Order: sequence, then C-alpha cells, then structure tokens
Amino acid sequence: MGKTAEIIAIGDEILAAHTLNTNSHWISNELRTIGIKTIAHHTIADEEKSIIRVLDQIQNDTNYIFITGGLGPTRDDITKKVVTKYFGGKLVFHQNILNESKNYFKKAEKEFPCTIDDQAYYPNNADILPNRKGSAKGMHFVKKKQNYYLMPGVPFEMKFIMENSILPKLQKEMKIDYKEFTISTTGISEAELIRKIEFIFEKYPSVKLAYYPSIEGVKIRIGQKIIDGNNDLLQSKNKLLNILGNYVYSLKDEDITKIIAKILKKNNLTISIAESCTGGLISHRITQNSGSSKYFKEGVIVYSNAAKRKYLKVKLSTLKKYGAVSEETVLEMAKGMREISDTDIALAITGIAGPDGGTKTKPVGLVWIGISTKDKTYANKIIFNRERKLNKKYFAQSALNILRLELLKIKNNY
Amino acid sequence: MGKTAEIIAIGDEILAAHTLNTNSHWISNELRTIGIKTIAHHTIADEEKSIIRVLDQIQNDTNYIFITGGLGPTRDDITKKVVTKYFGGKLVFHQNILNESKNYFKKAEKEFPCTIDDQAYYPNNADILPNRKGSAKGMHFVKKKQNYYLMPGVPFEMKFIMENSILPKLQKEMKIDYKEFTISTTGISEAELIRKIEFIFEKYPSVKLAYYPSIEGVKIRIGQKIIDGNNDLLQSKNKLLNILGNYVYSLKDEDITKIIAKILKKNNLTISIAESCTGGLISHRITQNSGSSKYFKEGVIVYSNAAKRKYLKVKLSTLKKYGAVSEETVLEMAKGMREISDTDIALAITGIAGPDGGTKTKPVGLVWIGISTKDKTYANKIIFNRERKLNKKYFAQSALNILRLELLKIKNNY
Repeated sequence: MGKTAEIIAIGDEILAAHTLNTNSHWISNELRTIGIKTIAHHTIADEEKSIIRVLDQIQNDTNYIFITGGLGPTRDDITKKVVTKYFGGKLVFHQNILNESKNYFKKAEKEFPCTIDDQAYYPNNADILPNRKGSAKGMHFVKKKQNYYLMPGVPFEMKFIMENSILPKLQKEMKIDYKEFTISTTGISEAELIRKIEFIFEKYPSVKLAYYPSIEGVKIRIGQKIIDGNNDLLQSKNKLLNILGNYVYSLKDEDITKIIAKILKKNNLTISIAESCTGGLISHRITQNSGSSKYFKEGVIVYSNAAKRKYLKVKLSTLKKYGAVSEETVLEMAKGMREISDTDIALAITGIAGPDGGTKTKPVGLVWIGISTKDKTYANKIIFNRERKLNKKYFAQSALNILRLELLKIKNNY
Repeated sequence: MGKTAEIIAIGDEILAAHTLNTNSHWISNELRTIGIKTIAHHTIADEEKSIIRVLDQIQNDTNYIFITGGLGPTRDDITKKVVTKYFGGKLVFHQNILNESKNYFKKAEKEFPCTIDDQAYYPNNADILPNRKGSAKGMHFVKKKQNYYLMPGVPFEMKFIMENSILPKLQKEMKIDYKEFTISTTGISEAELIRKIEFIFEKYPSVKLAYYPSIEGVKIRIGQKIIDGNNDLLQSKNKLLNILGNYVYSLKDEDITKIIAKILKKNNLTISIAESCTGGLISHRITQNSGSSKYFKEGVIVYSNAAKRKYLKVKLSTLKKYGAVSEETVLEMAKGMREISDTDIALAITGIAGPDGGTKTKPVGLVWIGISTKDKTYANKIIFNRERKLNKKYFAQSALNILRLELLKIKNNY
C-alpha cells in the first residue's frame, strides 16, 4: 500500500472566494512526484469547531496531513492554538524566536506589529520548522504514526518550509513503487484522443490512463505499479506516441513555451511577435521563462489599424480590401515583423476575441495566425469562440503550437 | 441563522494536481453575493467509497451542497451512479435525452462517443437541470430539506447550469440579512493596513473585518448583520476610506484595469504601453477588458536594447551611460512611446525580473516605471524581489497603479 496524504487549507478568505486556493494544488503536485497520493483536500473556516471537526475526520491510515493557513499575527489566526490543544500540548514562549522575529521585521524595514508576541509561542509537542521568508514558523506533530505539518498560508512561505524542511525528509522516507508518465498534447480534443488511443489500453489492463483537459490542450497520464519484467507501461506509451505523433509536444507536464525556448536556444534562433487580438499574452508567456532575452528580441501589440501600418508596414489597400482580420493582413504582419526585427522567425496574429466586433462573414472567434521565416511566409485560420478571456488563451496556445511545428519543420494541420 | 453551503469537487485530476480547482472558488463567490456562506470545500477521488464518505460527513444543517465532476462519458465518471444510489433512487433511461445528445454531437461536428448511452440515464429521484454547453445535465436532489446539486466539472458547463437553473432560484429563496463591502487596495501591505485602520473597528465590534492579500494588493472586506437604525457599517467604512485615501482603487472586488478603462473612456483618452521586463503582461491585462480597443491603441515589447532604440528612439548614449534599467532610459522610453503612438498618455517599464541579470548596483527586482503625457514625463523606482513570475506580476500591478494615479491627477508615493 502506498503512502497517502490529506491537505487542509484553513481560511475564511478561501471560502469567501477572495483568495483562490493554490496551496493544496502545489502540495499535491510535489507529493505526486515523490510517490505520495493525495486522497482529499479540505478547506474550512478559521473557527475552532471547524478545525477540530476536520481533524476528527482525517482517515486513520493517512500518513501525511498538511495544514496551511491561520498562523499569522491577526486575531482570526487560531490554527496553532487549536491544533496544539487537539494533540494535548500547550504553547510555550521562546525568547530566541521573539528576538529573531524582531530582527526580521527590522531588516524588512517593516513596523513591528503589536500582536507579534504571539508569534514567539510554539507548541511543546511539535518540532519547529524554520521559515526564512516570514515570521510564522512551520510545525511538525506526530500522533499515532501520523505526521501533521502546519505551515503559514502565504504561498511563498509555505513553499519555503516544504522545500527546506519537509520534502527532503519525505523523499528519503519514500521508496517509489509506482511509475508514471505525463504526456502533454495540444491541438486535439479529449473526445478525439479517446477515439484514437483508448483501444491500446484494452490490451494493458494494469496500466492506468487519465486525461486532464484544459483550454491549452490535454495532458495524458499513464502509470503502473512497478513489477519486474513487465513492460506494459513502456509498450503502451510507445504505441500511444506513435499514434499521436505531433499532437504531443512534451513527454513531461510542462508549458509549450518551454519547448519553444529549448528549440530556439539549441538552434541559436531569434524570434519576434506581432499581436493584435491576444494583446500581449503570447509575448508574456514567452517571457515567463528565465533567459528568454537570448531568443526573444521584440514584439509589437498592434491593436489599431494605424499601428499595423506604422510598425509592420501593412498596406492601407490590404486593410481596406480584406480587413484587419484576414489572411492577407496577417501575412503582411508576419513579414513586416520579421523584417523590422531582423529575427530568424516572426509570429503574427489577428482575430476577433469578442464579445463585440463580429460580423456575419467574420464572426467572433475567427483568428488568422501568420509565420514568416527567411524562406517562406504562410498563414493558418482558426475558429474558436467561448468568452473573451478563454478565446485569448486558446488563440495564444494555437499560435504557439504553430510556431513549435514550424521550428520542428513539421507541416501543421490547422 | 444564515444559509450555508458546502462544495464537493470530485476528481482524481485535482488531487493529482493536473487541474487547479477553480470551480469551488467560483461557486463560493456567487453564493456570497446572494448571502449564502460557504463553510467547507471538499475535494475527493472518483471512487465510490470516497463519495459516500464525504456525503456522510456533510453537516446536517448545511442548506445547499454543490457537487461538481465525474459526470462525463469516461469510465471513471461514477458520481451520478453513486449519488443516485446514496439517496435511494435508480437510473432510468430517457430516449429524448439520448436524441438530444446525438444532436448535440452532430451540431458540434464531433464524433459520437460509444459510451454516450450512459449519458441518457438519469436518476428517478432528482430533477434534471438543462445544460446547453455539453452532454451531461445537472441534477437536483432534495433529502431532509437539504438541497444537493450535481453538475459536470467542466467550468463553462457548470457555470451554465448554475447561472440558468440554480442561482436564479436561490436568489429568490434568500432574504439577505447581511450587508458587506469589499474595498480593493494596492500599494500598501497588509501589515501597514492593520496598523492604519484596525483601531477604527475597536469602536464597532459588530462590524466584521477581514484582509485578503495577494501580489496585486490587499482586498478589505467589512460586513455586518443588518439591524435597523445601526449605522456602524457605514460609519466605519467612511472612516476607513478617509484614512486609506488613494490606496483604495475600487469600492468593489475588481481588477485595477477596469478602473483604468472607466477613466480613459470617460475622458476620451488613449494610451500606449512600452514594456521591457513585464514582457507584454501589462498590455495583456489591459486587453482582458472587452472594448479596450477604444482606448488602447498600441504597445511595444522592447526586450533588446536595439528594440528600445528602434521603436522608442532611446539614445545609444543614454543606454551606454546609464544602462537599460535606469531613470534616464525609462523617461526616453515613455516619451518615445507617446510620440510614436500619438496617444494622450504612455506608460513605460524597464527592470530586472530575474533570476539572472542582476548586479550589485542594479539588483534583481529593480524596476523603473515612466509616464509621459502632453504636459510632463516622469519616472518612479520600485524594488521588489521574489521569483520571476511573481516579480512580473508585482511590476505590472505597480505600473498600472501609477497609471491610475496619473489619470486621477493624484501625486503618487512610489
């Protein structure tokens, strides 16, 4: 039996939808990579009875319980007090921690909150886990062989404690007996994927298969318990990759811009990007990767027709005859972008993100994507319409996929 | 006593951290605005025993229970079967629903999945709620005066059912007896806010106060049960607004770009944006708002020095003498952007997002933000360093706040 975890987020701000809970997601992801399976997420209020109730409900055989939130200096932060009492301990004062906290606030040039004294009290029945990113430390309780980890709810403080005190220890404790692969696809729907690959797995019943669709594509995860001499996982993976071909952009769970970055760096190529309907999203995603200045040189966001003409030399006659959202315009945009930037490759996009601006012949959701290299300039048309923000996301992902295929010198099916 | 809700998300993909659970957040937000308080979020696996367990754990006095996920056509989608049985019903076949589903797939030009027949079976102990965005319908069970709503996990399908079948009904059922305000601030930390405003509320113990910090700023929520003749909520709100002044950008929970959009439209002003370290994020955020083409004309992403010179006419001597991240460069960027775009106002930003590129005198996290109008051009310096993606977010928000203050003709404190 593998090790399991439950994750508890404590905070009225999550239940009131003022804060999106990303901590539980992050922790589950880290645990999965070292072979610990999350069996439940709980989010509850900053109230003593809610905290006790959820602790009572934790399964008896769950190995690791992670609790985030409610450790700060404000008066609704009661997690430490309640959990300590629940496990039969009490809070004791630590002068050295108070001094440390005072130093922390001094260094950060912040005023020292008057409630900070609470921050120097820690349970006598738990280990204290250092936090160099804030004044609330982590705690580790052990009860009936179950491990309870308490951490602040601020994501970068929680991550600091996980990465420095908890994950290295868990990694040692775990012997991984389960192997899995995540395969990232884009440009194909979940329904089409099911039709194309599901039959493979009828022959390999021990291989678990799951689909994780998002607006950017579908991730496929296949996994299997490790049994000596059984190659079902590798065999089914190879068959799957054979069938899916270029729909697969990575054999990991990663963003398509990371793949584009690798190819550009490897081949010493530079790019530039001209965006209309995506409004900067494509360049933003490219520049999320550190070191992107090596290959990404410049971009323009040509929202108005005047801007398309000024920066990219799109002809007035083209805009008048075919309109801003047309094959002719995007081809001139791509070519103009490459020429003005003197990059090896240019990407251009123009479309209608909505909700306004559509017509009968050019509906909301219509997009033209253009690529220009030294050898050729071409364009692809896409139609996709949900709501504005989703449309922008889908358009950007499609453009990045067309760019990826161009860099790999593979003909695209758009 | 007010009405309460618990939200259950069913899906291995969430626990395995392949999908971030945003449904529970969205539902809680909608419920809050009509006065229903979420008391817990649960996320569990697609397993019969987990589903039964969480249903057993729902509080006896919770009024509304929302269950999302596990209603699709794949074999791990078992929610409908398990919940129907749990409430003592059984699934019955509906020919009209099968026909409808077949039509849906035909219209969407998708292949008809062979497992779709399951999608025509619905419980005999629940109302069926229409879903025009997909093939899985919603369901409404009532057990001991508790309302259970089942919906698919695909966000836009869930939202369709909530908005069309559930929320209008709940709105009628609710008599709101609690009033609250959300106040959006930026440019001030939670600790500073506590120091500045917490004392106000000592006089108004019936007013509940909460802080919701994020990288973009802190939202403050104050609320109170409605009691005739009691003006504590309004009085404390006015005192708070007086003290916080321009740190408050909205009296609602909304993005700062919405405020900027309103001011620009009202005054018939146009803007342009020159970005270096934010890589397109500011323009992307501005263009998330529909109708942004009315005021946002163009932007450039001048990642390289060559691009800064070419598009914005930044002088080579300035770049050589002061460097790309400097007051002198950002002033030339802002002025150049406004001149080339012929907009009323231009925003420019240059900085070091990291993790590489910092020096002793110019560390990672250093940013210059410039504003240029017909009357003046000026710049502000900011230092903020966490990790690259957070840095980009913070830089963008600071620049947008400086832009907001300029539009309101308020001197900023940066």
